[in-house]
Amino acid sequence: MARRGLLIILSSPSGAGKSTLSKRLMAWDNTLRFSVSATTRAPRPGEVNGRDYYFVSREEFLAMVEAGQMLEHAEVFGNLYGTPRAPVEAAMAEGRDTIFDVDWQGGQQIRRSALSKDVISIFILPPSIATLESRLRGRAQDSETVIADRMAKSRSEISHWAEYDYVVVNHDLEDAEEELRVILKAERARADRQPGLNDFVRELNREFEAR
Amino acid sequence: MARRGLLIILSSPSGAGKSTLSKRLMAWDNTLRFSVSATTRAPRPGEVNGRDYYFVSREEFLAMVEAGQMLEHAEVFGNLYGTPRAPVEAAMAEGRDTIFDVDWQGGQQIRRSALSKDVISIFILPPSIATLESRLRGRAQDSETVIADRMAKSRSEISHWAEYDYVVVNHDLEDAEEELRVILKAERARADRQPGLNDFVRELNREFEAR
Repeated sequence: MARRGLLIILSSPSGAGKSTLSKRLMAWDNTLRFSVSATTRAPRPGEVNGRDYYFVSREEFLAMVEAGQMLEHAEVFGNLYGTPRAPVEAAMAEGRDTIFDVDWQGGQQIRRSALSKDVISIFILPPSIATLESRLRGRAQDSETVIADRMAKSRSEISHWAEYDYVVVNHDLEDAEEELRVILKAERARADRQPGLNDFVRELNREFEAR
Repeated sequence: MARRGLLIILSSPSGAGKSTLSKRLMAWDNTLRFSVSATTRAPRPGEVNGRDYYFVSREEFLAMVEAGQMLEHAEVFGNLYGTPRAPVEAAMAEGRDTIFDVDWQGGQQIRRSALSKDVISIFILPPSIATLESRLRGRAQDSETVIADRMAKSRSEISHWAEYDYVVVNHDLEDAEEELRVILKAERARADRQPGLNDFVRELNREFEAR
């Protein structure tokens, strides 16, 4: 009997290193699954449908919401983003943990969903705003207006840090990754998350009987 | 501003390696404090008053309970055991974590106390009952009746494993110690337990203002 998979919410302002950290976690533990969001926004250069996002029309998106097929969804800068429910539930049933790269709105909805018992949430903070801005500018594909919008969204995103179970400040990528691994290991050591424990204790009791 | 210290409940049947693991944790982090219990039982050979236990009379013990000076207390095999409250609260205020070597009754009382927000509880299981018994016999200072009593108490103690936040099976001392360290590190990474975070986020906001 596999344990139920965890839902690991990772939120941060863009540029705090969340994508890099998610990739590193998945390289460390290849059972981890990354939740692919659906979105109505246009693909950026290099983005692949089904890997980076499911690119859907507004009509398709709203139909999924209507049918209860979205675990969470929100509108950001005029585009809809959401998490399709079915793949998450399938992973949980297989005992695989899923990482969600969602903003505070998505985080709140997942935490308040029927799956809340298996949710852990982690907020990643940048070491400074200067770092955040230079990482955003380093991507060099956004206009000044987009940068300004993103910085404003970053500030609002950061204001929600205290709603999260854990906070990791990304001063150093290695250290931040180690902190994330530690959090995952500890959450998996919880009494109600170790699938073999019931049987193990039953075996100990058999040993007591046999003395 | 220091964070409040954690109350770390470690329970296990005797012989599961809890004392060794506590000592190793304290060698790893010398800010950790071990809660010294008060007891009415007679000192065993080698036990030192104030280090292993506070050895007190039944009258003294009951007077402390009466005065609300015990965080928890219980009677085991006709002897009273309890945790004096004052040193625990002093350590918490200094931001030092305290390890409690208590049984399930003590664990329940601490978890239900006014300090519950800062309690984490860990149950240590032996790899087998044979190991448990051989460790008990290895101490070689107890009679067969005492061994039988302890084995019965061990069984009843183990029956409470599911009340704990975390469970560690002590198959291997190094691994078990590492698991305990991971649990402590993760609990200290919780958003409400990092004392500098409020100031840190205030600084980030100042940076946003200054852009």
